[in-house]
Amino acid sequence: MIRFDSTHALLQANWQQAMAPRLAAAHESLLFDADAGVNATGWLRQPESMDLRLLNHVRAAARQIRDDSESLIVIGVGGSSLGARAALHFLQGPHHTLRHRPRIFFAGDTLDPAALTELLELAASGDFSVNIVSKSGATLEPASVFRLFRTLLEKKYGPGGAAKRIYATTDPEKGLLRAMARENGWTTFPVPSDIGGRYSVLTPVGLLPMAVAGADVAAVLAGAREEMEKLLSNRSMNNAAWCYAGARNALYENGRRTELLISTCPSFAAMTDWWKQLFGESEGKEGGGLFPAAASFPGDLHSLGQFIQDGTPLLFETVVRIDRPLASLKLPAASGDGLDFLTGRELGEVTERILDGVLLAHTEGGVPNLLIRVPALDEASFGALVYFFCLSCALSGTLQGVNPFDQPGVETYKKKVSELLGRPTS
Amino acid sequence: MIRFDSTHALLQANWQQAMAPRLAAAHESLLFDADAGVNATGWLRQPESMDLRLLNHVRAAARQIRDDSESLIVIGVGGSSLGARAALHFLQGPHHTLRHRPRIFFAGDTLDPAALTELLELAASGDFSVNIVSKSGATLEPASVFRLFRTLLEKKYGPGGAAKRIYATTDPEKGLLRAMARENGWTTFPVPSDIGGRYSVLTPVGLLPMAVAGADVAAVLAGAREEMEKLLSNRSMNNAAWCYAGARNALYENGRRTELLISTCPSFAAMTDWWKQLFGESEGKEGGGLFPAAASFPGDLHSLGQFIQDGTPLLFETVVRIDRPLASLKLPAASGDGLDFLTGRELGEVTERILDGVLLAHTEGGVPNLLIRVPALDEASFGALVYFFCLSCALSGTLQGVNPFDQPGVETYKKKVSELLGRPTS
Repeated sequence: MIRFDSTHALLQANWQQAMAPRLAAAHESLLFDADAGVNATGWLRQPESMDLRLLNHVRAAARQIRDDSESLIVIGVGGSSLGARAALHFLQGPHHTLRHRPRIFFAGDTLDPAALTELLELAASGDFSVNIVSKSGATLEPASVFRLFRTLLEKKYGPGGAAKRIYATTDPEKGLLRAMARENGWTTFPVPSDIGGRYSVLTPVGLLPMAVAGADVAAVLAGAREEMEKLLSNRSMNNAAWCYAGARNALYENGRRTELLISTCPSFAAMTDWWKQLFGESEGKEGGGLFPAAASFPGDLHSLGQFIQDGTPLLFETVVRIDRPLASLKLPAASGDGLDFLTGRELGEVTERILDGVLLAHTEGGVPNLLIRVPALDEASFGALVYFFCLSCALSGTLQGVNPFDQPGVETYKKKVSELLGRPTS
Repeated sequence: MIRFDSTHALLQANWQQAMAPRLAAAHESLLFDADAGVNATGWLRQPESMDLRLLNHVRAAARQIRDDSESLIVIGVGGSSLGARAALHFLQGPHHTLRHRPRIFFAGDTLDPAALTELLELAASGDFSVNIVSKSGATLEPASVFRLFRTLLEKKYGPGGAAKRIYATTDPEKGLLRAMARENGWTTFPVPSDIGGRYSVLTPVGLLPMAVAGADVAAVLAGAREEMEKLLSNRSMNNAAWCYAGARNALYENGRRTELLISTCPSFAAMTDWWKQLFGESEGKEGGGLFPAAASFPGDLHSLGQFIQDGTPLLFETVVRIDRPLASLKLPAASGDGLDFLTGRELGEVTERILDGVLLAHTEGGVPNLLIRVPALDEASFGALVYFFCLSCALSGTLQGVNPFDQPGVETYKKKVSELLGRPTS
């Protein structure tokens, strides 16, 4: 479903031949590890291994929340929230809280008192539920935010009523949050222990918020499964994930140091935040890796366009284009504004021409351009795109010679913060 | 008001002495150009040259919009909208459309049919007005979006009623939009012809939306004026703008290629988009310049933190910290979550300790760190910060040896797009 085009990558003619054997080795190594049950590779077969009972449990909880709540507060940080947030925007647009019920708010990425006070007030203004997403339950920011909302729930509904409105997505066995959920009788969902946070969108981490939003989660999984079957069985440079992983590594080896993921519609923009974590945390180690940045076109052409065209030549663009626009909108007639050449034309088509013009200008300016084409802004495409990016990232990190599933550098600051805050060591 | 700290810049001890004479020359050159009325330097004295009648005109229009509109659609792109959007978030938080009336929506940065259909429906659901912001009126995206909303206004209120709800911020004399406003009797506000888009926040471009949001625009200008007086009269490395411009150039000359502006509260995050345009478009030329990127802490520590700590050593951090939190919020007591060491503590203070820990970890990891301290999330601080960034950027571009006020690279793609769309050449 996902198509990839490296025509404008500005790479040497033979780059694919040079990359193919390395990609073949990376591909076999991933499959071998997944089949052997090696840690952190559970996502590779996840779209087909999802338990139907679990899916029904997710749907039932979502129905309950849709019935009894005007808002759902999803509390998580990093991989525990970026994927669900991406899905909400992808399927319902950036104004989803103004247009849909229940309103779904994301929290856990800040302890800012004003932002949290505002969100507590928004939640308290109607009936609400909480989905706390944390593998261990020990991460400082979401745990603190959860304590605030749990206290509010208990004040509003009493301890028994609150317990019915808390949904914990966490490790199936271990950890503080699992223990609290057991003790208090909260509804729980497992994060499989062999799937890391940034690869977990297609588990209950992402699926529960999507289902609460009314999305067809079976269609999300079906899209991912179709993409998985296509990609895992194709051992050639026609494999979109091979080609993306290979091209970005070839550009990196040619001296490019920043990948700019370009969103071409507002519904996709939030997915760039999830993508930044996926690639940045998987590859940004041992003093290497492409810096992951994002921009939105056409808006940012009036902001970053100058730098892209004429600035330090360190970056390449990866443009995500959506084939089937969600709506039809033609420019009406009007006078005096010099736009008569556009009257009656579809704005989706105008956007395509803008993107074509930008591609010409930027590649003439020496900026390599990769293109990812997604069929539509629907559930199946979202699932397929998530799988495509996860596989591309795992292959790409393997090519780069790093472990794409760990994040050792994150421990350094956590240790310092724990010392400064006087956190007891466990 | 704005304080700057380069203690952790990881620069050689004598960097300030080396930069000071270059900064002195850049400072004098800017002042000379502004006093001589050279093109694009009008912003340098703008905080004191603002006409009181114009300010009252802005306030009167804002009162009218607040009286007769549930929504205001601000249509602009790049410098015509990023500053106002930054101000709204800075002063009212990221959820401002859920919490304040009139709701202020920004449009003009996309022609996406679904996003525009949604926004047209949101606008049409109540009374609304439009502020079209475009120096020429000829920029493709905002002009097209304006045509859509103007058509909707005329359908809803008739041509006469629509004309009373259109506010055009544009060139004082020239251009398509000025001519249309004259012909149709729209209320207009001038963008001074000697101030470029990205330096125009403190003109009606930014001030009208701020006033509609209920902000004290005189306080914004007073904050900017105070900062201007302090910075223009201080010819030393104690000048915060000298020091910021000098440090980022010294880091650039040491091989750093990306500046990561770190937002430490959700209200500041939108300002990083304005900052990216300001610096990226001013300096990203002639094959040089720092790539401007942004992140939010603590959230993005769980996303980009790994890359910052251990990835390709091309970046430095510029952290913006707000001294006075807007609210007080203490962590309540609860059991089982392992957070008892935080019970009763202010979350603003906890955030400060997280930022302190991150600073230690990242500088130990060799990542240079610059610190900007802002007094509060209020009007005076916003005005001061805008002025500080504009002056720092103009000095910094001058140090780099480029013209910080042009954007020649943007023309390349515009030409291609015009060809592809069959736009008549004028």
